[in-house]
Amino acid sequence: MKKFINDASAVLADSLKGVAAAHPELRVDLENRVIYRGEATRPGKVALISGGGSGHEPLHGGFVGTGMLDAACAGEVFTSPTPDQMLAATQAVDAGAGVLHIVKNYTGDVLNFEMAAELAEAEGVRVASVVVNDDVAVEDSTWTAGRRGVGTTVLLEKIVGAAAEEGYDLDAVVELAQRVNANGRSMGVALTSCTVPAAGKPTFDLPEDEMEVGVGIHGEPGRHRVPLASAKEIAAMLVDPIVHDFDAGGLAIVMLNGLGGTPLIELYLMYGEVVPLLEAAGVSIERNLVGNYITSLDMAGCSLTVLKADDELLRLWDAPVVTPGLRWGA
Amino acid sequence: MKKFINDASAVLADSLKGVAAAHPELRVDLENRVIYRGEATRPGKVALISGGGSGHEPLHGGFVGTGMLDAACAGEVFTSPTPDQMLAATQAVDAGAGVLHIVKNYTGDVLNFEMAAELAEAEGVRVASVVVNDDVAVEDSTWTAGRRGVGTTVLLEKIVGAAAEEGYDLDAVVELAQRVNANGRSMGVALTSCTVPAAGKPTFDLPEDEMEVGVGIHGEPGRHRVPLASAKEIAAMLVDPIVHDFDAGGLAIVMLNGLGGTPLIELYLMYGEVVPLLEAAGVSIERNLVGNYITSLDMAGCSLTVLKADDELLRLWDAPVVTPGLRWGA
Repeated sequence: MKKFINDASAVLADSLKGVAAAHPELRVDLENRVIYRGEATRPGKVALISGGGSGHEPLHGGFVGTGMLDAACAGEVFTSPTPDQMLAATQAVDAGAGVLHIVKNYTGDVLNFEMAAELAEAEGVRVASVVVNDDVAVEDSTWTAGRRGVGTTVLLEKIVGAAAEEGYDLDAVVELAQRVNANGRSMGVALTSCTVPAAGKPTFDLPEDEMEVGVGIHGEPGRHRVPLASAKEIAAMLVDPIVHDFDAGGLAIVMLNGLGGTPLIELYLMYGEVVPLLEAAGVSIERNLVGNYITSLDMAGCSLTVLKADDELLRLWDAPVVTPGLRWGA
Repeated sequence: MKKFINDASAVLADSLKGVAAAHPELRVDLENRVIYRGEATRPGKVALISGGGSGHEPLHGGFVGTGMLDAACAGEVFTSPTPDQMLAATQAVDAGAGVLHIVKNYTGDVLNFEMAAELAEAEGVRVASVVVNDDVAVEDSTWTAGRRGVGTTVLLEKIVGAAAEEGYDLDAVVELAQRVNANGRSMGVALTSCTVPAAGKPTFDLPEDEMEVGVGIHGEPGRHRVPLASAKEIAAMLVDPIVHDFDAGGLAIVMLNGLGGTPLIELYLMYGEVVPLLEAAGVSIERNLVGNYITSLDMAGCSLTVLKADDELLRLWDAPVVTPGLRWGA
């Protein structure tokens, strides 16, 4: 295992120290492993929290800041954060207007956020949740009942974050979050496994001439393994399952996301291949992201996310955002 | 070789199509392989051009836009662009105030930019050049006489780009660029080789228990190979050669850069390790970047850049920038 680490059991703690040093505008609670905005939530603003296992950076800690999350709870690598972390974050960010929990659909995350919500409500905090389940690859998976939550989470955090900043109340924020989730679909492909530091070896074996189609962001199995294909062929493997899953036509925000070990030159190349396929399916790409936004440690691979959009979603997308991972308009 | 490509000989052309699709605000000349801003240079503004071999993305094309470059010339992977490309770009962006060529110190780049400058001057365009040579690892290397040009290039393009936007004339822009280069130092380390698509196999062999200290961004040999070390030990291998090379004390902008195959969680962890070592050497880190800014295809590794700063440099650093790779303040 070749990684920049000191001790496989201290990767999260050591990495959070670096986040704290790099981003003095954030407040990193190293003990509870929660990343907060530097300033308290504006009174009356709905607060947004997310979190999950680490290893997907910049998700979620890199999306804390003006126009996105108020706090992110970091679990150990590929391990859910605890209800205690989530409760501490929920209580800290509530400014009287309630708190939205943005949860990726993995059983541990769902259960722990549910417990945290109950505990917080018992303390008088209004909490609502949205569970993101946008991965069209498979139904049920290693750690998931139903569909896994992947790339749409990034777009949801941006759009719903902007709505909260604008003053949407908790009910409106929840309605919007559910609408974004319902309109988002993702599909991923891996060329290599990732290596979890505590395991010290690749999560799965993938021969030099094969790829995993429909891989999960923790290396969960996908739909099938196929011989290594050209970028053009892989683009079809990403686009087809999405456009067959729902009516993708119309305005859209599209993300071509790297899984951590794939360089930008290849991500742009893949983006160039998916665009004509999406356009042929009637997708009008109004905005896009190409880069590493929701990763799987050092996995070589990428995922495609298509979010059907409308004027409201595009307006909220364009609103200012100031976070380590996404920044524009301010 | 596991990469998202169609044809090893078409990687650059295919990737530029993706850049064009992802960034409609830029103008990508696919035939000449030059990335331009969408709008013509403002009359009287000094224009900035850079370029070099591809494989270092987002450098340089990802730094074209308001507050940074006016154009970037893309060579084939790890191959200098041609004088023709540079001449076309120079003529296209000149708005009467002259053009600065920002050149990384590799022999092919230096010779080709020199030839382009002569050709452009014969056509009546004022051209000046700065050659970046900030890599403290080695004197002379596979493709370089003297020191290689690496991470300081990113910081220089940002700072000098802001100065040109503010109205500095060509002489002032050149003086500033030389000052930034003189005040910047970098050092890198590789955990794995990169794989050039046209070669189809790793550029060099690096055993599972070894690392290359002082590696170049094309996989050029560094100072020595050592057993794989902890992040804390590697941080010292990055910081020590820099702080022994010049008086690093005082205000600084620091970049902890990923080489393409290393995920963000490890880059933050490394940043957390270099900060106390830099502080112990008297460096006061005023601004920082942590992420992939000047890469070496899919190489696992990182580099550290320390730029001694002053109030002028920090003001120019903070000025608005709108590019695919760096964006803030607008």
